Amino acid sequence: MQTPQKIAIIGSGLVGTLLAIYLKRNGHTVHVFDRSPDMRTVEFSGRSINLVMSDRGWKALEEVGLDHAIKKIGIPVDKRAIHMQDGKLNYQYYGKDGEAIFSLSRSVLNRKMIDLAEEAGVEFKFEHKIWDVNLTDATLYIGEDERSTWQELKYDKVFGADGAFSRIRHRMQRQSMFDYSQEFMKIGYKELHIPANPDGTHKIDKNSLHIWPRGQFMLMALANLDGSFTCTLFMPFEGANSFDSLKEEKQLVDFFAKYFPDTKDVIPDLIHDFFKNPTSYLVIMKCFPWTHTDKVALVGDSAHAIVPFYGHGMNAGFEDITVLAEKMALYGDDWEKIFKEYEKSRKPNADAIAELSRRNFVEMSSKTADEKFLLQKKIEKWFSDKHPEKWLPLYSRVTFSTQPYSEALAIGDYQNAIMDEVMSIPNIDTRWNSPEVEKKIITLLNSKSY
Amino acid sequence: MQTPQKIAIIGSGLVGTLLAIYLKRNGHTVHVFDRSPDMRTVEFSGRSINLVMSDRGWKALEEVGLDHAIKKIGIPVDKRAIHMQDGKLNYQYYGKDGEAIFSLSRSVLNRKMIDLAEEAGVEFKFEHKIWDVNLTDATLYIGEDERSTWQELKYDKVFGADGAFSRIRHRMQRQSMFDYSQEFMKIGYKELHIPANPDGTHKIDKNSLHIWPRGQFMLMALANLDGSFTCTLFMPFEGANSFDSLKEEKQLVDFFAKYFPDTKDVIPDLIHDFFKNPTSYLVIMKCFPWTHTDKVALVGDSAHAIVPFYGHGMNAGFEDITVLAEKMALYGDDWEKIFKEYEKSRKPNADAIAELSRRNFVEMSSKTADEKFLLQKKIEKWFSDKHPEKWLPLYSRVTFSTQPYSEALAIGDYQNAIMDEVMSIPNIDTRWNSPEVEKKIITLLNSKSY
Repeated sequence: MQTPQKIAIIGSGLVGTLLAIYLKRNGHTVHVFDRSPDMRTVEFSGRSINLVMSDRGWKALEEVGLDHAIKKIGIPVDKRAIHMQDGKLNYQYYGKDGEAIFSLSRSVLNRKMIDLAEEAGVEFKFEHKIWDVNLTDATLYIGEDERSTWQELKYDKVFGADGAFSRIRHRMQRQSMFDYSQEFMKIGYKELHIPANPDGTHKIDKNSLHIWPRGQFMLMALANLDGSFTCTLFMPFEGANSFDSLKEEKQLVDFFAKYFPDTKDVIPDLIHDFFKNPTSYLVIMKCFPWTHTDKVALVGDSAHAIVPFYGHGMNAGFEDITVLAEKMALYGDDWEKIFKEYEKSRKPNADAIAELSRRNFVEMSSKTADEKFLLQKKIEKWFSDKHPEKWLPLYSRVTFSTQPYSEALAIGDYQNAIMDEVMSIPNIDTRWNSPEVEKKIITLLNSKSY
Repeated sequence: MQTPQKIAIIGSGLVGTLLAIYLKRNGHTVHVFDRSPDMRTVEFSGRSINLVMSDRGWKALEEVGLDHAIKKIGIPVDKRAIHMQDGKLNYQYYGKDGEAIFSLSRSVLNRKMIDLAEEAGVEFKFEHKIWDVNLTDATLYIGEDERSTWQELKYDKVFGADGAFSRIRHRMQRQSMFDYSQEFMKIGYKELHIPANPDGTHKIDKNSLHIWPRGQFMLMALANLDGSFTCTLFMPFEGANSFDSLKEEKQLVDFFAKYFPDTKDVIPDLIHDFFKNPTSYLVIMKCFPWTHTDKVALVGDSAHAIVPFYGHGMNAGFEDITVLAEKMALYGDDWEKIFKEYEKSRKPNADAIAELSRRNFVEMSSKTADEKFLLQKKIEKWFSDKHPEKWLPLYSRVTFSTQPYSEALAIGDYQNAIMDEVMSIPNIDTRWNSPEVEKKIITLLNSKSY
């Protein structure tokens, strides 16, 4: 057990509240600050892509007994439903029988997490704006605005869980030897909405992640508990088929009629949604170090913001908390050691999921519409079913295991090199499940190393 | 001619003062702000690596007639003098007969540039601290410290020439879609000193850039006008043979005796210099965009900070001014167009010199001690002398030409691929200047494209 500390967490998002619960259960006094009002009392207006919880997220929740409460507000999703432009629908299962990710509404989940944290004894301080931090003595500076008079709040430890544009990290960035990068994507996103049927049922299969892959852009949809779907349109800001090119109602209607004809009946308020909802940015943020002495640490998006295409932003943030908890159990009151070992363990894995997520846009928006890619996935699944000890597909390593992301990425690259050779076998589309192909894969596995 | 503008430049360094002279000559009112006192009135305590002016720098100075004044305070350097650990000295000429870079003391050059700017009618405002800028209307915020009451100063245009940690860029970084990265090197540097002989002459050859290449670390020296040399020790912060490993006088003396025996007589105050002078950091900073509407632009290190190993930080910054001036001449009062075309033209070249500079540490600290590398350079020079229209070595492209850096980098990679094949010819060390090798290079040049 650790000596009780007075701890401030900046940010009442998913990772901040989960960390608060962990720290409170470890006997510490925990205050969570957020500049926004309590989201349980106001309409949510934050980011809009639905979340998917997978093994890493569940593991972190299980450890503090929260998995059952959260599973009740999620919907299992066991496959991709791929909507081709000609109306054809393909299904691609994510894993083996029963393996599924869980679709969760961000606002529903976040409100639930705050409830659970309060029940655990965490104190929330909403509408408290933290503008700066003294890294040397963990003092927070709070005030109405950046140029007003600030009040000082002294803590033993400060955690930055305040997202990709973290104020806590902002102070760390001004230290020497702090590596930092932010890169904005040329692709933005906009929320659209598929309402429930009048009887509360879902208009399309609720247990699928729906994708309309169109190359440079795509539409996706994930189910909510109330029968609706949260849809997200990902598209370049500029150029042909871009947000910039859809300025008028007619352009929008024609665009959807051409590329997403089967959405006509299920997105009734397309024009209203599209022109009302903001177009949001995507950013990849990397930094190092994540901690300062034994006083300050970053978790979640404030340490590693990624793009959403693997559905792992929250899962990676929750895994930060798992690793922090492991280090706390190992090193007790040696917080400098806890922080150093935490960042050392997590950094390569955060970089790996950043890379995997970036690549997955191409997989979702282009490859899922490519027959050859679907064949490759089918071969991998067939071989994996026959030789589960020899082959676990990359998606399963990332999503249905807690293997370090960096290992999953390296093994994935190794498997891809093998599959490149397999796919170049003449007439592979007719011979894909033949003994020769099976033998070829085994030979390649024995000859290559990763 | 442009309509006169009221222009603020933040930073009285080399690039800021040169830009001021250009803008003043174009008829604008120019105020240069610096948070430091006038460096002509105080002892200089800034960065300490000597500068080398090469063609890009000279071109920018010539345009405003300053090249003659500056040449007088520089020393031509036409070769590397490579000090091997066994005492052997190798020379490697940079270009053809007469081609030389010019060694300049940063403080001497910067003071001279401020004098010249004042003569041109530029107004300097030293000890004025700019803390923020309103990008929309080019208003500066000035005050004693960051949290004091600020005064507002309204301009038509603001240029950030305030270095790698620019406050002007700091405000731009908080805009959406602003890409940014800062990466600190694992290698730091420390200034050491070779004094003049009693009669004012130089203790070692003044027309050489002296290198003591030792793999992971190196010492270098560049001559000053007063007979002294500015020496710079580049070394990792941590590990074996690092700044961290030289904590005591005996460690330092033993280290120099082992690795730099021939410096014993020329660096008399080694212990004093080493323990008194700070260990400095090296950072690579990249960002984009560099401008905001028609109001604000970044130049020099505030837009692209690089490592010093190619000697091009100042030259690249001066070339920014050349390009800005070209765009001003082309687009007159359309400042938004001037800024957009400037950043579009410069960004790929800034990225290229960043990459070339990073690579050059390995060339200077390791390859210059490698017989095979020296042979390769010898072959390139021999072939280039015979076929100047077919082959200009990379160093000459970067340093003795104004070819865009991005082209120089691409052609350099292409030439390297050719030289890799040439160096693998059996017995190349005895056959290097044979007709067969000449023919081989010509064949490779005809078969490859870059």
